[in-house]
Amino acid sequence: MIKNFKIIVEYDGTQYAGWQRQKESLTIQGEIEKAISKMTDQHVTLHGSGRTDAGVHALGQVANFSCDTRLTPDIFFKGLNSILPNDIVIKSCEQKDERFHARFSAKSKIYNYRILNQILPSAINRNYIWFINKKLHYDAMHEATDHIIGSHDFKSFENTGSPRNSTIRNVISAKFLEKESNLLVFEIEANGFLKFMVRNLVGTLVYVGLQKITPDEFKQILLSKNRKLAAPTAPPQGLFLMQVKY
Amino acid sequence: MIKNFKIIVEYDGTQYAGWQRQKESLTIQGEIEKAISKMTDQHVTLHGSGRTDAGVHALGQVANFSCDTRLTPDIFFKGLNSILPNDIVIKSCEQKDERFHARFSAKSKIYNYRILNQILPSAINRNYIWFINKKLHYDAMHEATDHIIGSHDFKSFENTGSPRNSTIRNVISAKFLEKESNLLVFEIEANGFLKFMVRNLVGTLVYVGLQKITPDEFKQILLSKNRKLAAPTAPPQGLFLMQVKY
Repeated sequence: MIKNFKIIVEYDGTQYAGWQRQKESLTIQGEIEKAISKMTDQHVTLHGSGRTDAGVHALGQVANFSCDTRLTPDIFFKGLNSILPNDIVIKSCEQKDERFHARFSAKSKIYNYRILNQILPSAINRNYIWFINKKLHYDAMHEATDHIIGSHDFKSFENTGSPRNSTIRNVISAKFLEKESNLLVFEIEANGFLKFMVRNLVGTLVYVGLQKITPDEFKQILLSKNRKLAAPTAPPQGLFLMQVKY
Repeated sequence: MIKNFKIIVEYDGTQYAGWQRQKESLTIQGEIEKAISKMTDQHVTLHGSGRTDAGVHALGQVANFSCDTRLTPDIFFKGLNSILPNDIVIKSCEQKDERFHARFSAKSKIYNYRILNQILPSAINRNYIWFINKKLHYDAMHEATDHIIGSHDFKSFENTGSPRNSTIRNVISAKFLEKESNLLVFEIEANGFLKFMVRNLVGTLVYVGLQKITPDEFKQILLSKNRKLAAPTAPPQGLFLMQVKY
C-alpha cells in the first residue's frame, strides 16, 4: 500500500552542504533519504518544504515521502532517529493523504535570524549566530523592518539561481523578538521566500543598524527592485527555519 | 621585563582532548601556548585554574602565563584572538603581579551542568547538554542537592587519577537554577573539585531524579566515601566551567 508520510525535522546545518541532495557532498535530504531507503529497501524521494543552504539550521523543517510499505509512522519515527546522525532529529512522523506535499501544500514559513551584537565573539555559539562587534542601532532596524511587511516585489533581496515565476512575496510578519542580553533575533513569516531573501534582508537591516543607510533608504532599496543596491548577504549560520504552516 | 598575564578564556570543548597539553592531541592549553609562542618567540607555559576534560566547555576558564616581553595586555588580547581558532576566545587579558597564579590563587570555582529532559534529543544543542528522555523528578533532585552543601569528604564522587592531598572539599553552593522549558541547569560552587566530581555528582543526582535512589540514599552515598556506590559519571558535554574567583 502506498503511504505518504510527513516528517518534521530539526538539524544542525554546520556540517552539511545544505538541504538538497548532491552527489559528492553530505546533505540533509541525502542523509534522510538514505535512512528511509535502509528501512524500506526502496529508493525513496524526500520532498522538503524548501531548500536550506549550507550552514543554515532548522528546528521545524517539513518534508514528505511516499512509499509502498507496511511500516507505521511510529516505526519510521523511531527507526529514522536511530539510523540518522545526531545532528539530524526527526521530531515527528505522521501519515497524510496522498495530496499532502511539503512544498506545494505549505501556506507560510517562519524563519529566525540570530545576531550576536557584542564586543567579543562567542566560542560556544559561533555556529549559530552572526557575530557583529560594531554597535547596532536597534531602533532604526525596528523601523526599517516595518517596510517589509505586506505584499512586495522582493527582487532587491533575491540572489539569482532558483527558478521562480514571480518575485512578489507576502510577508505576514517581520519583527525583532525581545532582546535577550546581546542576542538580537529577527523573525519573519511569509507565504514564500526567494533565494537568500532572509539573509539579504538581514544584511541590509544590519546596514541600517550600522547607520550606513537610513530606514527610509531601506524602503527605497526595496522599491528599487535592484539587488545591487542592497547589502551583502548575511552569513548562513545565523539562520533557522523554525516552522512551516499548512 | 618579566610580566605575568591573567587571561579569561571561553572555549567550546567539542573538538578538543581537554584542557591539558598533550603531544599527539589537540588541546586548549596547547593551542593557546602555541599562539602565545607565536607572538613572543618564546616557549611559554600557560597555567590553567584547573584541567577540563575532553568535551567539557568553559565560559570563564582562567589561566596565567609569564614571559619577558614588551607586549601589553591589550596586544595579547587582540593578537591571541586573531591567531586562535574561533572555538577558543580570549575574553580578557590583564597584567597581574608575579604572585598571581591561576590555580594556586583561586578561591573558588563555579561549574554549570546542563541537562535536557524531554522526549526528543536536540540536534542543535547535542554538544552542550546531557540529553535524558526519561522523566526526572526535580523535587527529589533538589532535595538531594542540599546534602552536598558544606564541607564534606567527596571521595564517593572522585575518579582516581589525579594527585591530591585530601578528598575534602567545601561546597559553597549547589542548586538547580530556574528551569527554562526542559533545560535543567545544576550550578555548583566549591573551593576546589576532585577529578570528575561534578559529573559524578550529576550522574548520581540523575539517579535520584530517575527514582533509582532516594535523596536520603544519596546522602548515604556521600557519607560512605565509596565511589562504587555512586552512579556512573555524567557525560562531559553538559559541563561548563563558568567562573573562577580569586
